[in-house]
Parts: sequence; structure tokens; C-alpha cells
Amino acid sequence: MNYKIALIPGDGIGPEIVREATKVLDKIGELHGHSFSYTEVLMGGISIDKTGVPLTEEALNTAKASDSVLLGAVGGNVGQSNWYTLPPNLRPEAGLLAIRKGLNLYANIRPAVLFDELKGACPLKDELIEGGFDFVVMRELTGGLYFGERHTTTENGIRKATDTLTYDEVEIRRIAKWAFEIARKRNKKVCSVDKANVLDSSRLWRNVVKEVAKEYEDVELSDMLVDNCAMQLVKDPKQFDVILTENMFGDILSDEASMVTGSIGMLASASLGDTKLGLYEPSHGSAPDIAGQNKANPIATILSVAMMLRYSFDLEVEADKIEAAIKSVLQKGYRTIDIMSEGKTLVGTIEMGDLIVNEL
Amino acid sequence: MNYKIALIPGDGIGPEIVREATKVLDKIGELHGHSFSYTEVLMGGISIDKTGVPLTEEALNTAKASDSVLLGAVGGNVGQSNWYTLPPNLRPEAGLLAIRKGLNLYANIRPAVLFDELKGACPLKDELIEGGFDFVVMRELTGGLYFGERHTTTENGIRKATDTLTYDEVEIRRIAKWAFEIARKRNKKVCSVDKANVLDSSRLWRNVVKEVAKEYEDVELSDMLVDNCAMQLVKDPKQFDVILTENMFGDILSDEASMVTGSIGMLASASLGDTKLGLYEPSHGSAPDIAGQNKANPIATILSVAMMLRYSFDLEVEADKIEAAIKSVLQKGYRTIDIMSEGKTLVGTIEMGDLIVNEL
Ligand SMILES: CC(C)[C@H](C(=O)O)[C@@H](O)C(=O)O
Ligand SMILES: CC(C)[C@H](C(=O)O)[C@@H](O)C(=O)O
Repeated sequence: MNYKIALIPGDGIGPEIVREATKVLDKIGELHGHSFSYTEVLMGGISIDKTGVPLTEEALNTAKASDSVLLGAVGGNVGQSNWYTLPPNLRPEAGLLAIRKGLNLYANIRPAVLFDELKGACPLKDELIEGGFDFVVMRELTGGLYFGERHTTTENGIRKATDTLTYDEVEIRRIAKWAFEIARKRNKKVCSVDKANVLDSSRLWRNVVKEVAKEYEDVELSDMLVDNCAMQLVKDPKQFDVILTENMFGDILSDEASMVTGSIGMLASASLGDTKLGLYEPSHGSAPDIAGQNKANPIATILSVAMMLRYSFDLEVEADKIEAAIKSVLQKGYRTIDIMSEGKTLVGTIEMGDLIVNEL
Repeated sequence: MNYKIALIPGDGIGPEIVREATKVLDKIGELHGHSFSYTEVLMGGISIDKTGVPLTEEALNTAKASDSVLLGAVGGNVGQSNWYTLPPNLRPEAGLLAIRKGLNLYANIRPAVLFDELKGACPLKDELIEGGFDFVVMRELTGGLYFGERHTTTENGIRKATDTLTYDEVEIRRIAKWAFEIARKRNKKVCSVDKANVLDSSRLWRNVVKEVAKEYEDVELSDMLVDNCAMQLVKDPKQFDVILTENMFGDILSDEASMVTGSIGMLASASLGDTKLGLYEPSHGSAPDIAGQNKANPIATILSVAMMLRYSFDLEVEADKIEAAIKSVLQKGYRTIDIMSEGKTLVGTIEMGDLIVNEL
């Protein structure tokens, strides 16, 4: 079978990590009789440079017409790049928000896994992470403060700015269902995170999640306030299986969670909606400082490809194979600079890609 | 001189920790020729039980008429207490929000300090915290999502809830000034945290903070996105001096920061406004599970009293003395259960209070 993939290399290290990921995809295709065809799509800074906007209508349509989307990273150095002198809605990151909304990708899944081989990089003390941890943050991605009405006005000479946080039960229900479905395939625990002691939107969130939970009696639901969750992630990350939360809380908590693993260069993410079309990208950013130097860690992007095979194409065996190959390369002691430690073998972006391909 | 203090014991462990704190206050008064008079004020669950609301007009007025306010903690077990079957605006925590607003306490200062003696409790690896860390989170406390207009409606049978995040430049400027003033007395660095790549309110925040910075050329200002800050607190807390942020981000980040210290039972907080009247309280909650068992750690409350002496009464020497006494008691090896470790001497709430009083 042929799968049409929209490739968005983006900015910074984006192009070089996406290149390694497609190498892996091609090899998997060869081994299992699938073919992948790629169409490059402009987004972010490079799109601004070439078209004046971070995502053109045409680019969005190409993505829509594909079976799935693979993204490297977008954005540059805020202090240094001209992109950041543009109005906010024309900056690189606006492309990311636009494609999420445009493809209706309301469910963002970000795994936070402690890789056995990389335990040393975890900032937490050994006794807190014994036995490792493995959870996912399920973040609502197309609602809340990110997409609410906003405006800045001046009244009597005083500037005033407003953003709005709105959720309706349809938005909450569909993401909650995703969380319970994922939990069912994992350890059957959903922890829904909100600020129900303050926010109306959180109270609705909590109620609707409880309603959805009735359809999933095999899954255990708990609630947690967002401030407490920010603490628990540091204190005891092992307690979590699936964390379900709204857009802004999810932005903060998923980044905190990824740092708790100590290996953000290893974390993939998937953004999904109601169809099989998803957007897959590493959790890390575009790292402009090391772009083009063969230093970037391609593993998060390659793991994103594994997620694509699993969620968009139902190719479980192939996804498992990629994950196993990565594990094996790590066990053999190969490391990119971001995860390097004493006694290991330092390799570049391309070499890491080759090693994983060979392992397949 | 006589100082009038409104005492709010509140719920759970509140009464017993406040009792130890007033013991310390009385002793300091005796030694330095001040007197402190106390008026008890009802707030939280106990106020609901006695008056039907979490904060009466009369209670607020008593607080207003005092020189300063000392709070234990409010709230109970959400799953178990009847308080949580009430509508949100009648629950214990609503009292806290009402007193913050009612006294115009817009500047919340929460120190995050690694106590040398308690390093073992810090969840972070030793190499990340060598030399310790000591920063404060300055959180805006009377604006943003907490106090914006909110409503829940049903349109065409679909429930929908909205909260609003509004800031005007006056609100931002006054809290920013506080942050720069505090930074001036510390390491002269302010890191302003926002989500300026998405929110209008954050963009205004960032601009106004920059304007204020011009009046403080001796203080270094940097900006950080909230998701990045959630990561940096885990990765490298030493980088911070004063973190300045809006209400909801501050709620999340200050709790994360307190957990990073590993000793939340040791962290004080001050909520201040334009006058000398402040509200001082421990950063931890009401811990209903251990209430009345002489197990609670009174140190955070006693440190809150030290902050009161410093910020509300300009009694620097007396504040230093309390802090030194606590340090000394810790050095002698006394611990409450929450900070207990091998080879130390376990003491109860009252004993810990006595030890600190004796050390003065
Ligand atoms: C770039 C930014 C708008 C984006 C977000 O906040 O969603 C990023 O932080 C992320 O988490 O993917
Ligand atoms: C109890 C709650 C409303 C409160 C808040 O969110 O402000 C608490 O978490 C705090 O930080 O003091």
C-alpha cells in the first residue's frame, strides 16, 4: 500500500531530523512492502521567507489531502530573527496553530517515558524513579485560551488586553474519549487535570469527563488540580498513566513532564482528530543554535514516525520494530550529544539515523 | 509599639500551626519591646459552619482594620467534606479569594529556598542543586482568570463555559514594580514569565514590564515562556532570582517551585498591596488528614510571621532573629515528621514551636 505523507521540515534542525525519519520510514516500507510518498509543505519561518505568511492556504490543503503529516520544528531565535518583528499572527508559531486548527487536530498525545538507558539524564533522584515511569499527557489542542476571542483596547488612556477561555461539552467529550481509549490500551487510569476550584470552564470539564467515564467502567478516573499536578510530576511521576487536560494547562504540564524524563530529545508527539490523518512531531523545538551541524538528536522524530505508523496507518508491528531498533542502538552505547554520557559513543544526526536503519 | 494582628486559624492544621506562630511572635515582642494583639477572624470551612459563608463582611472588615493578617490554611477533603457540595462561591477557598480581593493584595511573594539542612528531601539530583538555590515567585493575585467575568450557558442543548483573562496596564505595572523592588534587595534579576506567543494579555504584560524595567536600570530583566519556565524550574532552578508572572501561571509555577525545594512544610508566603497591611500564610494547605495530631510542621507559618515583621512592620532585626532560630533548631537535628530523616530527632508541632521560642 502507498501512504501519502506531507513533510514539513520547517526551521532550524527541522530539515535534518526529518531527513533521518524518512530514511527510517523508507527502510520499514522496503522491509514490509509499503511505500511512502512525500510532498514537502512549507510552514513556519521558511514559509514566511518564501511566501510572506507562516502557512499558506495551499500548504494547508496539501496537508489535508495527505494520509498523514510529519513535522520537524518551526521557529527561530526570538531575539535574533526578523520573524519576531512581525505581528504575532504572522510569526512562525502561528503556522503551527493554524495547521492544528485547520486539520481539526484536537487531541495532542505526548508520551513522557524514562528510557532505562538514559536514566542518568533524569533530573530526579534515583529513589523517585526506581522502576522507571511511562505516562502520556493528552492535551486538548484546538480550544481554550489558544483559540478564544482576544483583543487589546485603550480605555481612558489605559491599555487593556483580554483573552477568553471557552470550552463546550462537545469539545471536552471528544478529547475525553480519546484519553479513555488510550488508557484502555495502557494501565487503565485517567487523571483529569483542571482548576475546578476557580474556573467555570474547569467545572464543566470535570463534569463532562465524569459523564464520559461512565462509558469506560474498566478505566479508573481521578481528578487533580493543575497546581497540584505541577507538584506531583516532580514528586512522584510514577503515579500517572494518562493525564487529560485542556490546552494551556497541557502546554505547561507536558513540557514539565518532558523535562522530568531528562531526555526531551527522545520524546515524540502526535496530534490527532476524528480521522486517521494526524500530525506527528518531536516534542522539542527547532534548536536554531545547532542547526545544520549534524548535532541534533533525530530519535524524537523517528519515534514520531513510529507513532504515525501506529495511529494513522495501524501498522503496529512496524511501529514496534522502530522502537525496538532505537532501544537496541541505545543499548549498544550510541548517543547524540544531548544524551551523551561517560563511556558512550558519540555520533551525529546522520550516523544515528543510519544506526537505527541498520538495526531494522 | 502595639501591632494589631488579625488571626485566621482556618481549617485542618490551621489552628495548631497558627498557635505556634503566635508563641514565637509573643516571645519576639517580649524580647524587643513590642506587643502584638490578636483578633480571631473566621474564614474558610469553619466560617461556613458558623455563618453560612466562607468570609463574612464583618470578618473582612476586622481584617481591614488590622495592621496585618496571619492565616493558617483553609479547606478540607474535597471528596469527604460537605463544604464541597456547596456552590463554588460558597466553598472554603472562596473565602481566600475574597480576602485577597477585599484587601487588594495583588502581590503574592512565595520564596523557594533550598534549606541546606534539608537538601536530602529535594527531589532533584545533587549535581543540579550544588550550592543551593534561593528565588522568589512574585505572582499577581487579584486579576486574570481568577477574577474575570465567567459564565456557563446552554445553547441548543450544548453546555458551554467561559472564563476571561484580562489585565490592564495599571495592574501589570504595580506588580512589576514590586518585583523590581524585591529584586533590588536580592540578586537584581527579574524573569518575567508569560505566553506572549499566544495571548494578548501576555503581550501587554511583556510590554508593560519592559517599560517598568526602564526605571530599574540596575536590575536585569529577561522574558521566558511559561512552558519553558515549567521546564527550567526542574532543570536548573539556580538560574532564578525573582520570577514575575500573572495569577494562573503563578499558581502553577509557584507550586512546582515549592515542590522542587522538597520542603513545602518550610515555605512561607506574603500577599501584599499598596499599604503595609499584608496577609501571611504558609505555602502548604490545610492537611485535614493530620489535623489535631500534633504532627504538622509549624515552620512555614513561623517563617510567614518573619515575613510579616519584615514587610508589614519593618522589623528586620526581629525577622532575621526568627529565621536564625529556625536554622539553629534544624542544625541541632530536630524535625517534624514531614522533613524527618535518618539520625534526626522527631518532634511534634508544639515541641517544634517551643524549640524555636527557646532558641530566640
Ligand atoms: C509554539 C507554541 C505556540 C506551542 C504551543 O504553545 O502550543 C508549543 O509550545 C507547543 O507546545 O507545541
Ligand atoms: C485555593 C486556591 C483557590 C488557591 C489559588 O489557586 O490561588 C491556592 O491554590 C493558592 O495558590 O493559594
